[in-house]
Parts: sequence; C-alpha cells; structure tokens
Amino acid sequence: VEDELTSKVVRAQVEQVNRRFYEAFETLDPDAMEECWGHGDGVACVHPGSPWVRGHEAVMASWRTIMANTGFIEVQVEVVDVLVEDPVAWVVCNERITAAGAGASETAAAEVTATNVYLLGSAGWRLVLHHASPVMRGALGG
Amino acid sequence: VEDELTSKVVRAQVEQVNRRFYEAFETLDPDAMEECWGHGDGVACVHPGSPWVRGHEAVMASWRTIMANTGFIEVQVEVVDVLVEDPVAWVVCNERITAAGAGASETAAAEVTATNVYLLGSAGWRLVLHHASPVMRGALGG
Repeated sequence: VEDELTSKVVRAQVEQVNRRFYEAFETLDPDAMEECWGHGDGVACVHPGSPWVRGHEAVMASWRTIMANTGFIEVQVEVVDVLVEDPVAWVVCNERITAAGAGASETAAAEVTATNVYLLGSAGWRLVLHHASPVMRGALGG
Repeated sequence: VEDELTSKVVRAQVEQVNRRFYEAFETLDPDAMEECWGHGDGVACVHPGSPWVRGHEAVMASWRTIMANTGFIEVQVEVVDVLVEDPVAWVVCNERITAAGAGASETAAAEVTATNVYLLGSAGWRLVLHHASPVMRGALGG
C-alpha cells in the first residue's frame, strides 16, 4: 500500500511538471519554460516536422524563437500515459494545438503526438527530451 | 575507472539492441522485431505522421502491417546520443529511410528523427517506446 501511495505521489509530481511545461508554452513565457528543462548536453528536442535540437542552450533558443513568432497558442493536452522508472519518467501525450503567428489574426489547428522524458534530479523532475510530431492522415512506416 | 567501464559496457549493450531493432526492420522480420520489444500496456509507438499505437499487441500488429506493405527498406541510422539512467536508456537517432512498397519498383526516401526508449528487465534492454517523425522543411512550433 505504501508503494502504491509513493507511486501515485510520484506520478502526480510528473503530471504537475508536465502541466507546467504546457502552461509555459501557452503563456509564451521563456523563463517558465527554462524552469521546466534539465541542463547539460543530453537535453534534446524535436519540434513538429523539425530535426533534433540538442543541448540546453540550443533547445532554449528554439523555444524563444517559437515563442517570439507566436501571437497566440492554446494546447489541449491529453495525457495518454505516464510511466515512471526512477529516476526517469516519460509522458505519452496528444496535443491539440490552436495557434496564430505573431501579429496574425487567423488561427491554425494541428494534431500532435508528444513524448516528454523527465529526469529526477536535486531540483525535482526536469524535461530532458521533448519529441513532438504532426499527425497526418494515411501515414505509415518507420 | 570501474564506473566508466560499466558505463561503456552498458552503452554498448543499448547500442546493440538499437542496431538489432533496425536490423529487424530492414530484414522485415516480425519475430526479430518482437524480440526487441518489451511487454505490457506501457509500450508505445509513433510511426512517422501517425498517432500513438499503445500496448505490446497493437504495436506488434502495426509493425506486421508495415512490413507486409514494404517490399524493400534500408535504414541508415545515425545514433546522435545514447543516454543511460538505469533502468532506463534512450537513444536519439536520425533515420535516412529508402523504401519501396510491396510489389513496387520505385523507391522513396525520407528523413526521420527517432526517440527509442529502452527499459532494462530480466531479459535485458527492451524497447518500450519508439517515436519516429518526418523531418519537413520550414517547420516550427509545438
């Protein structure tokens, strides 16, 4: 029972930092975004349709660029699964994104699958990998 | 020094199972593919442009479908990074795929980013998550 409780508490911690990550994105707040991420060269990120961005500095720069080019964004997050294997946790998500470019009035919608890998360190759970990709119709292979 | 050696041995194990995974794909061998994967409901897979497939059975079925519809496939794998945090390891890859459909003579090429998450169990390192996504030009956001 104690193990089950611990496991529930840990999952709740992971889900909380996962929510914070999407809140940082929705509020277009680069400082809050940086708070969510781990440090070091092992940090890696794929934005939908883009190649790997690697290392804390480059990943943060990619988010600042995205945020600077975004006027409005809403991300409806469906947490599909949370897996915890201390000191690593990964969250399997669907993102339904509605967004408008900076200065634009029309919004566009996109369906995205995301893998978020968190590592437990002295500062708590921190993102070390975010892999987001577009869902297209009729795709298969690879 | 002993820790460094252990770490090198573990990385080599993870890279080996990662190679086996791509060999299973290239040889279109569903049994070899199944050998690479962990069991249970937590197993999850995104094929390029597709939504999440979840659970061992559904993931294996998705690979069987892909393999049945593929006449030829070559995957040039660039291992970008291997991260190990026992009992979890994740491999950050680029895949350059050349493939032809079953019965087709023309091949198509694709550039794909992949996250492969492995979990160490009694049978060794097994894939628990594969997230592959197409690299498109001029993409950003999410």
